[in-house]
Amino acid sequence: MSDDIPEVVVNRLPLYARALTRLAAAGERVVSSQRLGGELEVTPAQIRKDLSYFGRFGTQGRGYDVDGLLERLRAILGLDRRWRVCVVGVGRLGQAVLEYEGFARQGFHMTAAFDASAAVAGRTIRGVAVRAMDELEASLAREPVDIAVVTVPAAAAQEVVDRLAAGGVRAILNYAPISAHAPPGVVVRQIDPVVTMQAMTYHLKAPDGDR
Amino acid sequence: MSDDIPEVVVNRLPLYARALTRLAAAGERVVSSQRLGGELEVTPAQIRKDLSYFGRFGTQGRGYDVDGLLERLRAILGLDRRWRVCVVGVGRLGQAVLEYEGFARQGFHMTAAFDASAAVAGRTIRGVAVRAMDELEASLAREPVDIAVVTVPAAAAQEVVDRLAAGGVRAILNYAPISAHAPPGVVVRQIDPVVTMQAMTYHLKAPDGDR
Repeated sequence: MSDDIPEVVVNRLPLYARALTRLAAAGERVVSSQRLGGELEVTPAQIRKDLSYFGRFGTQGRGYDVDGLLERLRAILGLDRRWRVCVVGVGRLGQAVLEYEGFARQGFHMTAAFDASAAVAGRTIRGVAVRAMDELEASLAREPVDIAVVTVPAAAAQEVVDRLAAGGVRAILNYAPISAHAPPGVVVRQIDPVVTMQAMTYHLKAPDGDR
Repeated sequence: MSDDIPEVVVNRLPLYARALTRLAAAGERVVSSQRLGGELEVTPAQIRKDLSYFGRFGTQGRGYDVDGLLERLRAILGLDRRWRVCVVGVGRLGQAVLEYEGFARQGFHMTAAFDASAAVAGRTIRGVAVRAMDELEASLAREPVDIAVVTVPAAAAQEVVDRLAAGGVRAILNYAPISAHAPPGVVVRQIDPVVTMQAMTYHLKAPDGDR
């Protein structure tokens, strides 16, 4: 299944799940694609198309079953599991990642952290011991993680990604401002606010600034 | 022009610009779509299609003129301008945003900051005075900004976005974990590492983990 679904669709699924979670908490049983689209600024047609990849959830003229669709999305995305996450690079950003409570609330548990600096390794942040970088491979072998968050400087990031992939990590969230490469079977996503801002300024400089 | 180019293409343009900047710095004059694609893990066909929106830069069988394409992309994205940025919400994340040097290096200059807490307003971070939230409108009127970074808690985010849009801010980078709404003419982008992780776990739970 994973080969058939475009990445842009996969990226929207967590947003659908989040909106449905809120609707379910508010006691809503059925939601139309119009309403769900309005919440997410996605067209109803796009929602219907996105969700059609996963089977039939809608009833013509009535809408989607909130609980049923949410349950299916949670299973599809693996949201009902517990994921182990390590942080590599415990500078200001890495520390903020370790301390952000939003990850654990969604099943992403910080289980290890690494830093190249002797001044940082040895510290404990929110119960996670920061280890030296040369312990990375042994630590991953002993206590595997599902996802690694890379918060090292740009110059060090590709080597870190290589070591994580070699150590069996299959999903890497890269905050370093480089387009990191990883072998097949390893998913890398980048968060780079500068790149996001640069895509926004494209719209700012357009005469109408619209969309 | 902005209405013709799909958002997914616009989002890739800063990555092309970054890769071309590196190639130009290394003295490269010409780059093939194969090589550029390899750097960015985008297919050569996709690169040719993306860049075709902006005119003809390639020479069949030879490649793209690095300097010419870079100059065009910088103009298209507004990368050669100076942009004024404010930060709303100076908690740990907002503080990290104010202190991150990568923004100013790319033309994004922090010119104002706001926080609802009396303990934070009044502080100065990297030369930027943090003001009280009730000064937001007057400050924007006096010293407009191009882009706002929203780093307030989820429950406060939509109201902040509304006030920023009403105050004339046309681009908003939202770190709060909500799908914020803004009026037409205002671009909102969200950075949410939890959502990004949730899209990755889709791949982790597939049998082969591949994509």
